[in-house]
Amino acid sequence: MSTSRREFLAGVSAAVAAGMTQGGFHSAAHATEDRKLGVALVGLGSLGTNQVAPALQKTKHCRLAAIVTGTPEKERIWSDRYQIDPRHIYDYDRFDKIVGDDSIDIVYIALPNSMHAEFTIRAARAGKHVFCEKPMANSSEECRQMIAACTAQNRHLGIGYRCQFEPRHVRCMEIAREKQMGGLKVIEAGFGFQIGKPDQWRLRKSLAGGGALMDVGIYALQACRYLTGEEPEAIVAQETKTDADKFAEVDESITWTMRFPSGVLAYCSTSYNFNGLNRFRVYAENGWFGMDPAFSYNDNRLQTSRGSIALPETDQFATELDQFAISIRENRPSHVSGEEGLKDLLAIEAIYRSIPSQTLVATHLS
Amino acid sequence: MSTSRREFLAGVSAAVAAGMTQGGFHSAAHATEDRKLGVALVGLGSLGTNQVAPALQKTKHCRLAAIVTGTPEKERIWSDRYQIDPRHIYDYDRFDKIVGDDSIDIVYIALPNSMHAEFTIRAARAGKHVFCEKPMANSSEECRQMIAACTAQNRHLGIGYRCQFEPRHVRCMEIAREKQMGGLKVIEAGFGFQIGKPDQWRLRKSLAGGGALMDVGIYALQACRYLTGEEPEAIVAQETKTDADKFAEVDESITWTMRFPSGVLAYCSTSYNFNGLNRFRVYAENGWFGMDPAFSYNDNRLQTSRGSIALPETDQFATELDQFAISIRENRPSHVSGEEGLKDLLAIEAIYRSIPSQTLVATHLS
Repeated sequence: MSTSRREFLAGVSAAVAAGMTQGGFHSAAHATEDRKLGVALVGLGSLGTNQVAPALQKTKHCRLAAIVTGTPEKERIWSDRYQIDPRHIYDYDRFDKIVGDDSIDIVYIALPNSMHAEFTIRAARAGKHVFCEKPMANSSEECRQMIAACTAQNRHLGIGYRCQFEPRHVRCMEIAREKQMGGLKVIEAGFGFQIGKPDQWRLRKSLAGGGALMDVGIYALQACRYLTGEEPEAIVAQETKTDADKFAEVDESITWTMRFPSGVLAYCSTSYNFNGLNRFRVYAENGWFGMDPAFSYNDNRLQTSRGSIALPETDQFATELDQFAISIRENRPSHVSGEEGLKDLLAIEAIYRSIPSQTLVATHLS
Repeated sequence: MSTSRREFLAGVSAAVAAGMTQGGFHSAAHATEDRKLGVALVGLGSLGTNQVAPALQKTKHCRLAAIVTGTPEKERIWSDRYQIDPRHIYDYDRFDKIVGDDSIDIVYIALPNSMHAEFTIRAARAGKHVFCEKPMANSSEECRQMIAACTAQNRHLGIGYRCQFEPRHVRCMEIAREKQMGGLKVIEAGFGFQIGKPDQWRLRKSLAGGGALMDVGIYALQACRYLTGEEPEAIVAQETKTDADKFAEVDESITWTMRFPSGVLAYCSTSYNFNGLNRFRVYAENGWFGMDPAFSYNDNRLQTSRGSIALPETDQFATELDQFAISIRENRPSHVSGEEGLKDLLAIEAIYRSIPSQTLVATHLS
């Protein structure tokens, strides 16, 4: 385990513990500045509406300061609900004018995946820090451009990997990294759901970049990476499409396996075509531990071969945003940095590349 | 679902039900013949000693009639314990003399994998039916030779796939085949354990043919095949060796994924290097079902997204042997025929072939 990883775990554990026992991060030693950082929420879809904006009412270190929407009727609704002055409401054309809006420190990008790169780069050029939803972008090349833009402007870039701040996931990282059950051997992880309306952007390749793998499989991939603390070195994958109309443009279901440098193997799955797949389990030398459900917004459960572990609920969105705000104040990279997003895209691209190379089973029995 | 598969399920369900409610299969309509079929147990290792011989005290349609062992001191012990007349005790050199032993109808082969083919063929040529432990042989080529030998002698050949007669597995097959939760989508399955002494035959390639995959991974593979009722058409796999000394000759841990013609994907794992991996879960259109533990001799558990299903314990070895005896009496192929064993070996060979073809992950981040 690298020093930075150890520090990360120690920091997150302490932060989570502080948040739990003292009602937030406000009392933590590093939170010396009083002013909350202002967040401009870009994209008022389901995630922004139901998760991010409510979370920003609970954060200790940031607050909802502005919105960016392409839907004029949402302006009044949001203005009323969150007391946002019309001067801090933007549409996509006027987005770059945020450069002159000092109430905005951070731009939270909750747009379709294909727009992440463009708006991250525009936000950085407007002098703002950027917190971008996962997947970071449609390609590793876009990720590199986003990192370069933020680096050039000396702005922080964070990716919306909320699970990395969830207490059960953090505990699992500790069990894994501290070898509390011995060295890791094999990890199983999967996340999927039955996607709804066929006309949504998630099913358009130009907007989403890919299907189940990009949207939810990435959680299983991330989990394998932060549990091992390693990057996969080789991948094999398979894909299936049982509904060729609905999933004409993006992947419906994918299974894959990954080998890590230490020898750990992970076998994973994702789908847009059924519910109930939402878990991981880590098999180690002296026992197993895992979560099921693992990747939900709440009510996740942590179980081990030695019994279950109960931990308090947190708001994952509030926690990740406060952690990002703290990393800005402390002027250190976020634990869920752009590089972290890029590494996932590199693995995702390897999964997609691997799909054509399959070994046929001889079926001629006689 | 093919007619033969439907008949199989109906037959097994009825047989299991009869066995449970009436103390065995003896009262079933098809059990008209009184004489139990005589079984010669070849190989008195752990499996033969602790599972097969005790099971043969419970069977209704067959009985332990003879033993074949290369260890002279075992002859007296077994003779005393099971009242076996010395005339029915053979060593491997005198094995072929079973041709003249009318007390033997079935030869049960519980030898190291590399000896399965030779003794199956010798038993068939001695005019005996053969029940052979899994994996059927070290290669598909050997499987074909075994099938040919039994066919030429008009002898029945069955493989020791005990789970196919286990009530929870049978129930899962019914849930799957009757689409009680809708069509199947994705299956996860894995079986492994921490193997003990480094000098055992299971770790010698010449004796075992392979490692964890051949020995226990085959259960996960089998489960995917009998749950879908299909043969995998394409496979990708990865292997790891974290203990290169102990596993110098055979596989330590393997993960693989399989695509079936209907579009079902399975992702699987096996290992000789940790405990606790012993389960499968089937994700279907309207829910999931699975077992954990799944492949143990007893105390397996069946759970579904709608709740758990309690079913009585059975002796899996007694049940498979009685079912084999019934198939002989009814002169129909066993549901766990040689072809069933061959199909697993074909898939296993595809898994091993697939391992070299992996997609590397780009790790150059800058």
